[in-house]
Amino acid sequence: MDKKKFIAVIGSGDCSPQEARLAEEVGKELARHGAILVCGGLGGVMAAACRGATLAGGLTIGILPGDSRRSANPYVQIPIVTNLGEARNVIVVKTAQAVIAIGGGYGTLSEIGHALKNNIPVVGLNTWQLFRDGIPEASIITAKDPSDAVHKAISLI
Amino acid sequence: MDKKKFIAVIGSGDCSPQEARLAEEVGKELARHGAILVCGGLGGVMAAACRGATLAGGLTIGILPGDSRRSANPYVQIPIVTNLGEARNVIVVKTAQAVIAIGGGYGTLSEIGHALKNNIPVVGLNTWQLFRDGIPEASIITAKDPSDAVHKAISLI
Amino acid sequence: MDKKKFIAVIGSGDCSPQEARLAEEVGKELARHGAILVCGGLGGVMAAACRGATLAGGLTIGILPGDSRRSANPYVQIPIVTNLGEARNVIVVKTAQAVIAIGGGYGTLSEIGHALKNNIPVVGLNTWQLFRDGIPEASIITAKDPSDAVHKAISLI
Amino acid sequence: MDKKKFIAVIGSGDCSPQEARLAEEVGKELARHGAILVCGGLGGVMAAACRGATLAGGLTIGILPGDSRRSANPYVQIPIVTNLGEARNVIVVKTAQAVIAIGGGYGTLSEIGHALKNNIPVVGLNTWQLFRDGIPEASIITAKDPSDAVHKAISLI
Repeated sequence: MDKKKFIAVIGSGDCSPQEARLAEEVGKELARHGAILVCGGLGGVMAAACRGATLAGGLTIGILPGDSRRSANPYVQIPIVTNLGEARNVIVVKTAQAVIAIGGGYGTLSEIGHALKNNIPVVGLNTWQLFRDGIPEASIITAKDPSDAVHKAISLI
Repeated sequence: MDKKKFIAVIGSGDCSPQEARLAEEVGKELARHGAILVCGGLGGVMAAACRGATLAGGLTIGILPGDSRRSANPYVQIPIVTNLGEARNVIVVKTAQAVIAIGGGYGTLSEIGHALKNNIPVVGLNTWQLFRDGIPEASIITAKDPSDAVHKAISLI
Repeated sequence: MDKKKFIAVIGSGDCSPQEARLAEEVGKELARHGAILVCGGLGGVMAAACRGATLAGGLTIGILPGDSRRSANPYVQIPIVTNLGEARNVIVVKTAQAVIAIGGGYGTLSEIGHALKNNIPVVGLNTWQLFRDGIPEASIITAKDPSDAVHKAISLI
Repeated sequence: MDKKKFIAVIGSGDCSPQEARLAEEVGKELARHGAILVCGGLGGVMAAACRGATLAGGLTIGILPGDSRRSANPYVQIPIVTNLGEARNVIVVKTAQAVIAIGGGYGTLSEIGHALKNNIPVVGLNTWQLFRDGIPEASIITAKDPSDAVHKAISLI
């Protein structure tokens, strides 16, 4: 299993139906490519991605912020219980070799920051755009759909 | 001391001379207002802000990522040794009641994300601009100079 | 996989040959019982337990203190990269439903403390004995051999 | 302030009146010696030690496990908000140059383990006794009263 690729899917725990569809499809694509899905283990984008990966026969890891494995969404197969709150975002990112960001709120923004700081590639689907001094920051690689996102993430490892 | 205000100054450990000047002035202004400075304890913006605060008679706290108090810049008076790497960014933000971001790289971006997630006000000087769907995100409060940044940060607590 | 039992094996990264034999046998027994092995991911007791579990067809999770998946021992199948140093000991313990302590130094002692604090059963093989006011503390359940340790750990979940 | 000594006082958040008296006296002695008190910021031994230090004019730092500065006991002057739960025990220990353990439950046991692992001296007042293979472990330095504990802790730095 040590040749397996670990890819994180990050996004809001309270996402739109469209984001959930994107996340589920990303999860399926990851499983089809034999990649292991890493996420924060909760609902929204995380649950949808885990659902897609599990339905397609893949393995899912949930790095939980809380104190109980029961806080994991039902599609997390490997719950990691940190009780670290949002500090667990760093672990989600560092455990992965590439990150796919889908939509996202401020927690996702923090994870994008941690990933870029660690030179871990970030592929984005409808996520944040970053500017400095009015100039776009090109660090987030834009994908046009879930298949493209997974293809780019895997090819960047 | 429990009525004192705790304000974080975040920014790159490897900053421009202009950013260092802004940070030192922010540190001085915080001390003049009796606020306690919280930062990540290293160089660049953090060291300049601590220097300013210390020169103006203020108190400085450095939440260090590494394993030794000796990694703190010389103007940190209270070194907190976490050995948590970047996960300490969450502690910098949560220990403060408002955050002033100066310039900044990806670590600063992660701290902005953590602060906004926790409803801690973020005041920015020459820092990141955030967009979603091509629309500017107004969560970072822009300041025009160090005095304005400190005034806004204190008034938002 | 969510009905699987997660059991931690804790012990020194620099152990005696006898402790390594005990740990490898514990790993094998855990795998034979279908339990998932959680550990700190490094050498010594951790590597021996992972080796035993992997040879017997089990799954192994290594909660790494460092910044790279390459620091994991070669029998870790799921490396979790925390970069938290010893603070990762808390995650090792909380991710498990029972803990088996083999020999052990001060890091193991900290994990025993964290486990007992969280009401997670601790089974001991040649490990610490605790006293308060000269009276033995009975919280660590003594096992007479690896098979007994695994049997007790599983029955306590 | 960088020549100040940082000494942690560890012990249960729910202690006996006798332990509280010991802790308050330890806090006073630390302040009289100009040392800065580091603790976990909550009640019991932590609150009593902070009370003693504050009454004697000393400075107190509370490394809080929770998400709010309001969880600190009223004698914490510098609240550090970690939201890391018990993982904050590592920070309490690493921020100090010596540790005084008073009584104590399993959380205190974990802190003793973390301190000894980091070669930080531990002085004990009515605390755990450790044995390996039936032989007492001499790592915890026994003190006969609060004054002796503070004297030993300071002299060991």
